[in-house]
Amino acid sequence: MGFWKGRDVISARGVSREQLEEVLALAREFDPVAKGRTGVNWLDGMILATLFFEPSTRTQLSFRTAMLRLGGSVIGFSGESGTSVSKGESLHDTIKLVEACANAIVIRHPCEGSAQLAAEASGVPVINAGDGSNQHPTQALVDLFTILSEKQRIDGLKVLFAGDLKFGRTVHSLAYALSSFDVELELYSPPSLRMPAAVVGEVREKIPVSETSVLDVSNADVVYATRVQKERFDSVEEYEKGAYCITPEVMGKMRKDAVLMHPLPKITEIAAGVEADARAAFYRQEANGVPVRMALLAKVLGEKR
Amino acid sequence: MGFWKGRDVISARGVSREQLEEVLALAREFDPVAKGRTGVNWLDGMILATLFFEPSTRTQLSFRTAMLRLGGSVIGFSGESGTSVSKGESLHDTIKLVEACANAIVIRHPCEGSAQLAAEASGVPVINAGDGSNQHPTQALVDLFTILSEKQRIDGLKVLFAGDLKFGRTVHSLAYALSSFDVELELYSPPSLRMPAAVVGEVREKIPVSETSVLDVSNADVVYATRVQKERFDSVEEYEKGAYCITPEVMGKMRKDAVLMHPLPKITEIAAGVEADARAAFYRQEANGVPVRMALLAKVLGEKR
Amino acid sequence: MGFWKGRDVISARGVSREQLEEVLALAREFDPVAKGRTGVNWLDGMILATLFFEPSTRTQLSFRTAMLRLGGSVIGFSGESGTSVSKGESLHDTIKLVEACANAIVIRHPCEGSAQLAAEASGVPVINAGDGSNQHPTQALVDLFTILSEKQRIDGLKVLFAGDLKFGRTVHSLAYALSSFDVELELYSPPSLRMPAAVVGEVREKIPVSETSVLDVSNADVVYATRVQKERFDSVEEYEKGAYCITPEVMGKMRKDAVLMHPLPKITEIAAGVEADARAAFYRQEANGVPVRMALLAKVLGEKR
Repeated sequence: MGFWKGRDVISARGVSREQLEEVLALAREFDPVAKGRTGVNWLDGMILATLFFEPSTRTQLSFRTAMLRLGGSVIGFSGESGTSVSKGESLHDTIKLVEACANAIVIRHPCEGSAQLAAEASGVPVINAGDGSNQHPTQALVDLFTILSEKQRIDGLKVLFAGDLKFGRTVHSLAYALSSFDVELELYSPPSLRMPAAVVGEVREKIPVSETSVLDVSNADVVYATRVQKERFDSVEEYEKGAYCITPEVMGKMRKDAVLMHPLPKITEIAAGVEADARAAFYRQEANGVPVRMALLAKVLGEKR
Repeated sequence: MGFWKGRDVISARGVSREQLEEVLALAREFDPVAKGRTGVNWLDGMILATLFFEPSTRTQLSFRTAMLRLGGSVIGFSGESGTSVSKGESLHDTIKLVEACANAIVIRHPCEGSAQLAAEASGVPVINAGDGSNQHPTQALVDLFTILSEKQRIDGLKVLFAGDLKFGRTVHSLAYALSSFDVELELYSPPSLRMPAAVVGEVREKIPVSETSVLDVSNADVVYATRVQKERFDSVEEYEKGAYCITPEVMGKMRKDAVLMHPLPKITEIAAGVEADARAAFYRQEANGVPVRMALLAKVLGEKR
Repeated sequence: MGFWKGRDVISARGVSREQLEEVLALAREFDPVAKGRTGVNWLDGMILATLFFEPSTRTQLSFRTAMLRLGGSVIGFSGESGTSVSKGESLHDTIKLVEACANAIVIRHPCEGSAQLAAEASGVPVINAGDGSNQHPTQALVDLFTILSEKQRIDGLKVLFAGDLKFGRTVHSLAYALSSFDVELELYSPPSLRMPAAVVGEVREKIPVSETSVLDVSNADVVYATRVQKERFDSVEEYEKGAYCITPEVMGKMRKDAVLMHPLPKITEIAAGVEADARAAFYRQEANGVPVRMALLAKVLGEKR
């Protein structure tokens, strides 16, 4: 099984193109299974623990469904209340407990670096489902798979990220993942919410990256909008200008064959009327979460029929 | 599979006698499975999502057990905290997410009409497990099944509803369901908690319905008591008269072959000593939740061995 | 299947040596299954309900994993919020509901005696997973199994309990369980947190029990430390003396072949550096939770391939 078997999946950084493509290929195999809402029994008898120290319906349901559709079972919790953590237990000790119960651990935690800490404590593979504003590598895989499904290729595309690129861990992971392909990346965000320089620097060593303060969607093959939260803006005025909202007017300037993506949940940054546009791929992107996470779990847990 | 396969189950209104009987017949088949605490594998590989925006241990456990006893799996959540809803996501978008993960959705929501909204957003069948004070159609099926089990028939019976008939969605759904049979319905409630005129009017077009302000259980084949909540009364005095409490004295006036039902949980409206009476059917009624929901899930998901 | 089949497991009191050994022997059989993170299908089609009225990640995950590794399924809840209990329902009525859904019930409840009450209401076996400061019999089984695994015997050992012996239900159950073997028990605790006289009296009828106010670990084969909570001490000064904290210095005085146990979660009572000591068995003890609970569930549910 090579690279993935038994491996912790903490960051999209440093994962090679071949390794990414290996997961994407298996996800394509699982796609009709997931979309047909049937299952396989690759992971019969295995147990996945989903530890959501910070709630996330979306990612949690997607992982749980992926494990169930592979024939496995799921344990876990959502929210700290009612966990030993609320009694003062260390993350290390919580992981030691879960390690004894499960074949792999999915962790979502509000603190950056927590997934790495968990991986160091655990004897079973740990998959990062979001650690603070740091990384969300499985979302990056879902996003790559979506680009491939929508555009039939990744190489040669122009990808525009728009919105909060500072706290949006999704775009950090996706930037690393895209840098293994032949793409051009354009970054559009409020000045106070620019993508961290460390990420930009590292990605720029591999692919062209430009930053802009004007939203121009006319050349992009993929427009990737992120969640925009009022409280993260420097000034309410800047937020209320709505310059980070995708409206039907913005869609009007997009290429006919372009794709609009968003990691969801969306609140106000996607205007009414946009979702009816066939180029709005966010619900399809979301539905890709199941086959992609099935592929990753199958790779990491090393089972195959 | 006819009528039920792939269908949303939002209301007991407008479901025909034949369609109701189809579910009751399959529930009878599943009854020994459920009561024997064994299972079948009709829904192997399928996933049910139970979305309880408003908690309900009772209905949730009953649906989960029904799905598990059919060989399927369950995902979901209970309470809004920790869902994307608490981040401001629309019900529509939550349903789009869940639709990608599950073969069918059970929803309980505090707002009237929410189950219908969910059904419109969803590409997989949606089953209403209670929307505000509106409808609770699966409870009506459980109640019909209980009447049939206890009395061996539904036609020809006199059914008395007693208690809060305004907010008790259970009795709304059951009134619609009973109106497809040849029954007489009597309604006893505080003046401020009468059954909505729209429901009474529609049911009265099909069967005789009388309203009364005096509790007379002596002629009823079935006495159906509902939960009575102090805060819903116009005056504390009226509540404290206790005229809506089933006591051993009330039981003493019931026919020997009558049945006392209650949707549970009960608080003070069933007095101590009543549950020892063999005519008190509420725990048997509750246990019927599993075979009836097994039947409904099997019908809607269209699988049969 | 004899003694265990269909039995409620409420207390370690009054369980004979032969009955304990029967579970320990089966746990040994399941040990490679649990540690290898695979499964068997002894309880295919069966459902366990885990009712945690008081949260406990540790015990809940351990029971859930045990049931899943036996091929069964799990339903349940954690925390009272969102249960009918929060609407005022009696424990009796909650149990009647769950009894209709599950093949066995695991209950954790803050009130002493609640597990016994649940068992009286239930027609299916009830397993006590901790009722207030009273009993926690399955932890006692895990502890016995750990002693046996670490020391290859129970007879002839000197066991020292150190810490809060009043509220620590774990040590109450373990004291009863050990009294069926040929062991010497030493009790070390703050004066205000001594083991209840009723427990000491009963255990002393069967094995030697001594109480001490000086921590001397030099003769013990097993040192069993408990959680020490500041708010349970009579005086902050006494707590802050730290006399109930296991430090590397204390470890230095332990026999080379001794074992340090702790029911976890641990907060401050196990000092940094202790867990690296090979004699610190608490994570191994915790991992034993799965095979031991598998054995107990298999015995109580009476299935065997």
